[in-house]
Amino acid sequence: MKNFIVLLTDFNNDFYIGQMKGVIKNINPDAEIIDLCHNITPQNVLQTSVILAKSYKYFPKKSIFVCIVDPTVGSDREILLVKTSCYIFLVPNNGLITEVINKEKKYFVYKVTNTKFFLPKVSNTFHGRDIFSPVSAYLSKGVSINKICEKFEKTKIVRLHSINTEVKKVGDKKVVVGKYLFSDSFGNIVTSLPEEMLNKDDIDKYRVTVCYRNKPMFVIKLKKCYTDVGKSKLVAYINSFGYIEIAINKGNADKFLSNKINLLTTEFLLWYE
Amino acid sequence: MKNFIVLLTDFNNDFYIGQMKGVIKNINPDAEIIDLCHNITPQNVLQTSVILAKSYKYFPKKSIFVCIVDPTVGSDREILLVKTSCYIFLVPNNGLITEVINKEKKYFVYKVTNTKFFLPKVSNTFHGRDIFSPVSAYLSKGVSINKICEKFEKTKIVRLHSINTEVKKVGDKKVVVGKYLFSDSFGNIVTSLPEEMLNKDDIDKYRVTVCYRNKPMFVIKLKKCYTDVGKSKLVAYINSFGYIEIAINKGNADKFLSNKINLLTTEFLLWYE
Amino acid sequence: MKNFIVLLTDFNNDFYIGQMKGVIKNINPDAEIIDLCHNITPQNVLQTSVILAKSYKYFPKKSIFVCIVDPTVGSDREILLVKTSCYIFLVPNNGLITEVINKEKKYFVYKVTNTKFFLPKVSNTFHGRDIFSPVSAYLSKGVSINKICEKFEKTKIVRLHSINTEVKKVGDKKVVVGKYLFSDSFGNIVTSLPEEMLNKDDIDKYRVTVCYRNKPMFVIKLKKCYTDVGKSKLVAYINSFGYIEIAINKGNADKFLSNKINLLTTEFLLWYE
Repeated sequence: MKNFIVLLTDFNNDFYIGQMKGVIKNINPDAEIIDLCHNITPQNVLQTSVILAKSYKYFPKKSIFVCIVDPTVGSDREILLVKTSCYIFLVPNNGLITEVINKEKKYFVYKVTNTKFFLPKVSNTFHGRDIFSPVSAYLSKGVSINKICEKFEKTKIVRLHSINTEVKKVGDKKVVVGKYLFSDSFGNIVTSLPEEMLNKDDIDKYRVTVCYRNKPMFVIKLKKCYTDVGKSKLVAYINSFGYIEIAINKGNADKFLSNKINLLTTEFLLWYE
Repeated sequence: MKNFIVLLTDFNNDFYIGQMKGVIKNINPDAEIIDLCHNITPQNVLQTSVILAKSYKYFPKKSIFVCIVDPTVGSDREILLVKTSCYIFLVPNNGLITEVINKEKKYFVYKVTNTKFFLPKVSNTFHGRDIFSPVSAYLSKGVSINKICEKFEKTKIVRLHSINTEVKKVGDKKVVVGKYLFSDSFGNIVTSLPEEMLNKDDIDKYRVTVCYRNKPMFVIKLKKCYTDVGKSKLVAYINSFGYIEIAINKGNADKFLSNKINLLTTEFLLWYE
Repeated sequence: MKNFIVLLTDFNNDFYIGQMKGVIKNINPDAEIIDLCHNITPQNVLQTSVILAKSYKYFPKKSIFVCIVDPTVGSDREILLVKTSCYIFLVPNNGLITEVINKEKKYFVYKVTNTKFFLPKVSNTFHGRDIFSPVSAYLSKGVSINKICEKFEKTKIVRLHSINTEVKKVGDKKVVVGKYLFSDSFGNIVTSLPEEMLNKDDIDKYRVTVCYRNKPMFVIKLKKCYTDVGKSKLVAYINSFGYIEIAINKGNADKFLSNKINLLTTEFLLWYE
């Protein structure tokens, strides 16, 4: 049985990632490391939580996820180990695990405490290298959770506010109001509108209104894929991880819209014609 | 015998790459994944085709190349499997394979069709994860092409227009006219002028004229390497994959020239003094 | 015993890295490649030297470091192999190895010369692929250094000027003057002020003055971590690799300061209150 350690950080391309890999391989040369991604917007715990929750099921069972988006490193925030039926997650107790435990019925939570499994010298600003990495490596070698951790009360887990979608009545129409979650490197805009909000047999009847300062700016038809609209046209669709996303066919929707509005305070209204 | 799966995408650093790796490892934990690169300019099929054709020969025989630059994902474009004597390529039928099959005399083409080897749920916008990745993983486990694919007519392969270099007479001089292909992360500018156009024993006699709106903007001497010119000077040379490239010694030629001209409509004239 | 090859380049996300990996795996499919990092500022040999020296000890013994920040590639600069008690380093002779050999008492230096272990065709601008990669792969397969290299005189190693910190008297205060080294992807600013300059039991008494054109611009208190100051406040601290670093809590110090001053000519004054 192979042991996979999956890394998810906001370190972008910095050498911090390489140092973590060095630490892991030094302890367990047979651990196999997979990068989930490292281009989280700096300190964006919500984005990390969503990406983690939408990705972990694709990985081999028993994978250990090492998640370092950790703006409060060095403070008294705990380092948690969350064990679900198939996976282990190492996370700072800052809300990052929220979307995972919203999906998992049964899970166990521990606090990482045994300094014997840390690097000998622990820095104040890089627990990813000094604590998370060695702990993940020892876990991948078969050291039991109980040797490394103590029990932790679930009520003490920091949780993010649930991703808000609000249902409103506008005239006689039911409207679901979503927010901006993040953009990917194509400039595709992920909204918080989940696919569960719509009837998939009837996709062509849905519209997304991009609303800024209570003014409707764009009304976009829901389609199946980019090429269902002409080049350089705005298009909305259910993305590959279950949210409604806005793109420009062969263009960059984030750049286009960010020139006109502040995405962080924009509302995305989903409605049925 | 190890099985290598080589990834080439325009996903930059997005988590889409990590999800693909998860899918592959979940099906074949022993597959070894190598990133060729992921920083293709979004949707630039020509750039991808060139980089693939100039890179695949460096990889171990039997490597499976998974190439996802796929702006028409979700439309009726086919997914092709192209088998050469040494390699397998999985590509959308959008021209990406052009430069490879221009080099290979003998190859076989199939269409990927057997949904049994796809993920159970296939999204409209991410076949890289839902089709290409599982198919590559099953291939790497030894599933035969015939179980996954159907034959596909070579005449139906979408091909890019061949990379144009035109030979003109200017006065009594023979001039080869090339175009802009792409820039690398140093800002070095790859032109479509191939090394075959010049006599390598006589490199010092060649010049490249950068021509914009029919006006010659810069005349650059062909040299062997960056340091053959002074710091911050423009230099042309045969690059590491056989094209004439323009750089600034310890500088960024793309930034410098893009401030003055539109590289996409610039002509690069190669001539012999 | 596994053989690790660690890559450190300024290739960012370019396909050059993928080609190097292909070459290595083609020669030694069992070599395991780890990316230390590839986002060195183009041609910044000093930054590379610091990152290498602060990172190599985290990697498994016997790791082979392949370091390609090589602006003088194609000139007559040598390619060196430096062997310490635990590691092998392949570097261009351009100063990159300086910070490593400043730390290592005992080491051996060779010049890579045997073209039998290069790719058959060596380009003028990409020795990383054509020389460094195959040589590292053969070394990882157990080919002895003597077969690939010749002895090289230590006095001929190009060395960077030592990273300057100067101690001055300002009034009756002892002040240590540091320079800008580089910024990470968070915009945290690494200064050349080493932690050895201060008494760690008394951290709260230290200040860093950011001084531009001899004018003090900001006075920043030394703290333990980011959250020791309010959101959007400047903070100084000992970073994870032993230098004093300047950040903005949940912000980007590099962007903030670069709008006001030129970091390359800024001085960072460390003093005790």
